[in-house]
This record gives sequence, C-alpha cells and structure tokens, in this order.
Amino acid sequence: MSTRTTVITGIGSLVTNDPGHGTGPLGLLTDAAVVIDGDTVAWVGPAAQAPAADERFDAEGRALLPGFVDSHAHLVFAGDRTAEFNARMSGQAYSAGGIRTTVAATRAASDAELEANLAGFVREALRQGTTTIECKSGYGLTVEDEARALRIAAKHTPETTYLGAHIVAPEYAEDPAGYVDLVTGEMLDACAPHARWVDVFCEKGAFDGDQARAVLTAGIERGLTPRVHANQLTYGPGVQLAVELGAASADHCTHLTDEDVAALAGSATVATLLPGAEFSTRAEYPSGRRLLDAGAVVALSTDCNPGSSFTSSMAFCIAVAVREMGMTPDEAVWAATAGGAHALRRSDVGVITAGARADLLLLDAPSHVHLAYRPGVPLTAAVWREGVREV
Amino acid sequence: MSTRTTVITGIGSLVTNDPGHGTGPLGLLTDAAVVIDGDTVAWVGPAAQAPAADERFDAEGRALLPGFVDSHAHLVFAGDRTAEFNARMSGQAYSAGGIRTTVAATRAASDAELEANLAGFVREALRQGTTTIECKSGYGLTVEDEARALRIAAKHTPETTYLGAHIVAPEYAEDPAGYVDLVTGEMLDACAPHARWVDVFCEKGAFDGDQARAVLTAGIERGLTPRVHANQLTYGPGVQLAVELGAASADHCTHLTDEDVAALAGSATVATLLPGAEFSTRAEYPSGRRLLDAGAVVALSTDCNPGSSFTSSMAFCIAVAVREMGMTPDEAVWAATAGGAHALRRSDVGVITAGARADLLLLDAPSHVHLAYRPGVPLTAAVWREGVREV
Ligand SMILES: [Zn+2]
Ligand SMILES: [Zn+2]
Repeated sequence: MSTRTTVITGIGSLVTNDPGHGTGPLGLLTDAAVVIDGDTVAWVGPAAQAPAADERFDAEGRALLPGFVDSHAHLVFAGDRTAEFNARMSGQAYSAGGIRTTVAATRAASDAELEANLAGFVREALRQGTTTIECKSGYGLTVEDEARALRIAAKHTPETTYLGAHIVAPEYAEDPAGYVDLVTGEMLDACAPHARWVDVFCEKGAFDGDQARAVLTAGIERGLTPRVHANQLTYGPGVQLAVELGAASADHCTHLTDEDVAALAGSATVATLLPGAEFSTRAEYPSGRRLLDAGAVVALSTDCNPGSSFTSSMAFCIAVAVREMGMTPDEAVWAATAGGAHALRRSDVGVITAGARADLLLLDAPSHVHLAYRPGVPLTAAVWREGVREV
Repeated sequence: MSTRTTVITGIGSLVTNDPGHGTGPLGLLTDAAVVIDGDTVAWVGPAAQAPAADERFDAEGRALLPGFVDSHAHLVFAGDRTAEFNARMSGQAYSAGGIRTTVAATRAASDAELEANLAGFVREALRQGTTTIECKSGYGLTVEDEARALRIAAKHTPETTYLGAHIVAPEYAEDPAGYVDLVTGEMLDACAPHARWVDVFCEKGAFDGDQARAVLTAGIERGLTPRVHANQLTYGPGVQLAVELGAASADHCTHLTDEDVAALAGSATVATLLPGAEFSTRAEYPSGRRLLDAGAVVALSTDCNPGSSFTSSMAFCIAVAVREMGMTPDEAVWAATAGGAHALRRSDVGVITAGARADLLLLDAPSHVHLAYRPGVPLTAAVWREGVREV
C-alpha cells in the first residue's frame, strides 16, 4: 500500500448501513474493526480478524457510524435573525422581513465575510459529526450575488445547489414572471457552472407549480439535477412535481396527501424531513412513520438557516425525529447517514464498507441509540473526514 | 488584592440576573466587563469603566451568563438502559425492570466505578456550562448503598439529596410500610450526615401522600431541607405537601390543578420543570406559562438519569421549554440559572453580581437567545467555575 493505513479496533458497535454485512437495516456489527487506507475504507470486519496497519486507534468499546450526511442546508449568508426568533417565541409582534432580511445582509457582505461564515458553519457541523453537507444559494437573488454564493460554497463542498428561486427577489415583487425569466436565464447561466443541483421553494407565497416546473426544467437542461422544497407550509404540487421530474429529493414533506406519499414510495425521490424547521417555528411535524410504512426512502437533515431552523446538529434532528415523527432510533440514524446519501445520490458516503469514503463518527457512547437517548448532549468523540482525523 | 484577578472584556451581552443592574428580568448589559477575584465576582459594569486586573480575557462580543444551575439530577448509578429506551421509542414490547434495573447494576458496582461515572457526568455537564449540579441517591435502596451514594456524591457537589424513597426497595415489595420505617430510621441515620436535602417520589406506584409526609418530616427533623418529586405522572398530593412543608422545590409539576398552581404561586417553593423527562417518554409537557402567569418561580433542570431523561444538557432543556412549555427564551434562560439557584436556596450562584461565585458561561454566540435559537448546537466557548477556567 502506498498510502498510510489506520486500523480502528475495539469498536463496541459499528453501524455499517450494509445489511449484507451485519444485523438489521443498519448492518450492525459488534466487536468490530475498520481499516482506513488513505481517504478510503479498506476493510470492515470482526476485530479479531483485523489486518495490521501503520497506525492503531482504540475505540474503547464505543460506537462508530458513518459521518452524518446533511443534505439540506443554507449556509451562505450574513447576519442572523435573533430578534425575529425571540419575538416569535415570546409571542410578540415583530415586523419581520423574513428571508428578505437575510438577503439584504448577505448582499451587503464581502466575499471574505460570507466565506468565513460558511467555513465556520461547516466546521461547527464537522465537530458534530457531519462529514458531508449540502449548501444552497438563495440569499443573493441577483445574478452576481447568486453566482458569488455558489462560487464560495463550491470551495467547501461539492454538493452545491442553485436556489435562485428561494423567494421572488424584492426588485421583482411586482413582476414575478420576470424574476422566473431571470432565474431560468441569465442567473442560471451564471450559476450552473458552480452548482450540482437546482432547487425551488414551491409554496404559496414563493413559486407555484408552473413556475417551479419552469425553474427545475431549465436547470435540468443545463445539466443540474433537481431537488425541491415541497409541501412545507401547505399542501401543494411540489412533491408530485419532484417525483415527475426525477428529483433526488423532496424536502420538508410536512403536508402530504395519500397520493403524495404513494408517489414518493413509488419513486427514487427521497423524502427529506427537516424537524429543526418545525421545532423552531412551532409547526406541526411531518410523519416519518407514514412515509416509512408506505415504503418511501426518508432522509433527515438540518435545514440550517438563520430564519426557520438555525441548528447544525444532526443528532438533534435524530432525537426530535424519534420523539415527534414516529421514527425508531435505528430509522432516524439511518436517515441521517445513508438516507442523506441517497438524497444526494451518493454511494460513497453514508456507509462504512470497503471502498467507501473514510468519513467516520466515533461517539462518546456505546451505541448509536444514544443519539436519541441522550438528547442535546455533545457525543462526538472523534471524526474522520476522507480518512483524516478532524476532531 | 491578595488573589489573582481577571477582567473579562468585550462581553457583547451579559446576563446578570440582577434587574437592578441591567435591562429586564435578566438584568442585561451590553458592552460589559466582569472582574473575577479569586473564586468571586468582584466587579460588573460597562467595559469602558472596567478596572485593571492581572489577566485579561477578550470575550470578542460574545454572550456571558451565569453557569447553569442544574437543581435535579440522578448521577450515582451504574449501567444504562439503552435497550429499554430503544424498545420504548420503537413501539416494541420490553419487560423493563425500570428503576430496579439500575438499582441492581448500582448495587453491584464498586465505589470506584460509581465515582468514575459520577465524575464523568459532572464533567460532561461542566463542558456544557453547568457549574452547579444537584445529585440524588436513590439507586441503592439499602442503608449501606444509599449512604455510599451520598458519600460519593458529596465529594463532587455540596448539593446532595437523600432519595431513599425513590421507589420501595425490591426486598420490601410486600412491606412498603417497613420500607418507609427503614427510610425514616436507620437509613436516614446513615445518610443524613452526607446530605443537604431530603426528597421523595410522591406518585402512584411509589409513595403516597402519607408516606411522603413521613419521609420528609423525618428528614426535616434531622436537619435536611425537603424537595419533592411531585405530580409527574398523575395528579396527586405532592405539590401541596411540598408547599405545606416549606420544600425548596416541587419537581416535575406536570399535572397540576388550579389549586396546585395557586399554592406554588403563594409560596417560596419553586416549581422545577424537567422537560427532558417528557421528551424522552413521549409524555405531555407541563405548562411553564401557566405557572409563570400565576406568579410561581420556575426552574428548569435536566433530571439526568438513565431511565426517563438521559440528558445533561441545560441548553437542550431551555430549547424544549421554549418550544413546548410556553416559556420565552428570556424566561427559560432565567429558569436554568437563577431559577435553579432559587430551587437550591442559593444566592451565590445563578447571578453575575459583585460577591457572587465566579461561575460563568461564555457562549459561542452573541446572545443568550441562541440557546433556544440554535437547538442541539454545542455553544460553550468557555466556562469558569469558582473563578477557575475549566473549559
Ligand atoms: Zn431549506
Ligand atoms: Zn428525578
């Protein structure tokens, strides 16, 4: 071997997410070992059979799982919205500008400020075990500001999403059709080179089904793959549109008809649930149980953003999904790792199998169940990203 | 000054909990400084007027608040109950032994093991900003095991609580009156020297009103001050008994009649709410709003224990109290600091005022509101306990 190898031994409980390799859907192994070769997992198996390696790390009986895959986050912004949150949760009137407040602060910020903010959030997430994180534009809403957000994001993650269609830009308040033309034309031209995904906020007050279709179709024609903010605040066409266009994910899925659930279950579109949003807006939670029972693939993600869900904690999302969304601890942990990988159409992350990326989270706990059992407690003992010990 | 002094400057937002010194019930100051002299706060005021000191710490605009006061925790135990939690949250049958499972594991553990567990939890809590933590016995339930728990706890905190009356010991299942005799007799004799408080779980299936009264009265006669596990699972006499006996706190308060609320509001007994317990058992939350509107003093605490609330995160409790219990972020932060201090009848903690203990939590955030605004995110930037930088 030309690269440096590390063997992690003494893994009390290992989540592989490889049902062929261990017990249950999580592919659980006990008394296991994992060998890292460079940036890749080279070997997984019983500790007693572990091959030698250049270095040895003793997990001391703790649980190892794939690093979290956070497939939905909004991290390129400036300012925060503390006063708005405080007023909302205190039952006080507050003339909130909502997303517009963040758009104004983001436009006014320098590139360096935006990148420092983004890097800070990526680091904060990494410290909590998140090794893959998606990042959307959507607080620029001009050709230059959207392209800038994606250029900056692309320096920190390959999972960049063009969300020019977050809301109608303030300048186009009286001409939403003109804004859709911009988003599907000049803005798309400027953004597509820096993005993997195209997204749209399909919701009353944002973009209707026809507008959303136009945005996603234009993105697809430019080689982007769609994902959709769908059915968050109200019932609507978002989920059906996502399925029809082969979107990787329909995100939020809070208000679903039986037809929506069936459409997701019969498709390759992942239902990505974002419990932080319901937590922080005192909204009703989506039912993970209903989607899982129907056979849909479910992912959990933070939706980290300063307005409606300012958490970067995947562990918190797991705990809330178990408390409020009818998911078992096993299902929630799968959704936060392998589920997120499905939502990003990645087979190299969200699993611990030979050939996968060496993105690993060691918990200060004997079991992955502790992510739900010990809510709020920071349980990160160590994190490897692409084989490098980062935490 | 004979001791070493440190000035903390650049405090963007300071929670003093001294309404006479700053804005609102939290006594908020902006652009503030705090001087530590030895283990004590020596000075609080505007940064521009801060006196010189031996050392200087720049808070860089972040928020400083009193260290959390966690007035209700069960930390002397061995084992955990992962399988029981997992089964409960997965909707599976599980013949759980409940508290008895932990009693058996605790009795079987060595002193060293129990102390290592306890020290680990105290450290874990400290890393999350908790500088005062109460600790109960209650997993021994023999004279020797209860006394041992309190001896060990007393090495780590002055806030030790005799909870021989947690449940009826398995050996007395057929003779609960005999167990109350033991708890109020020989066991009390062995435990009182190591305890400040006496507590009882007044609940159907544990101890009824008469038994609870006997336990608390006996403790009072030995110089202990009462606190009560009251009205958690059902309506009952616990709260009224707590008020009648002048308990420092009635804890849980999930099921309260209007008379219970009025009794608390008209007393010096704090209503200590434990949202982690409702979170982890999918139970209905108590209403902080109702208690606050009636004029009761409300504290928040973790109830950290392996059965019903295995969190040590006061920040998590704040976030859940805001989401679920009708408390504003300001009220929840007060309850987790000054409220806990009231529940422990301490005036030297839970506040940042001249003469108070230098127990301080610096957040990785510009405002205390972020404890609710950023749920699950570890926000500890630094912790001082008795003037010593610990984190
Ligand atoms: Zn979003
Ligand atoms: Zn308790």
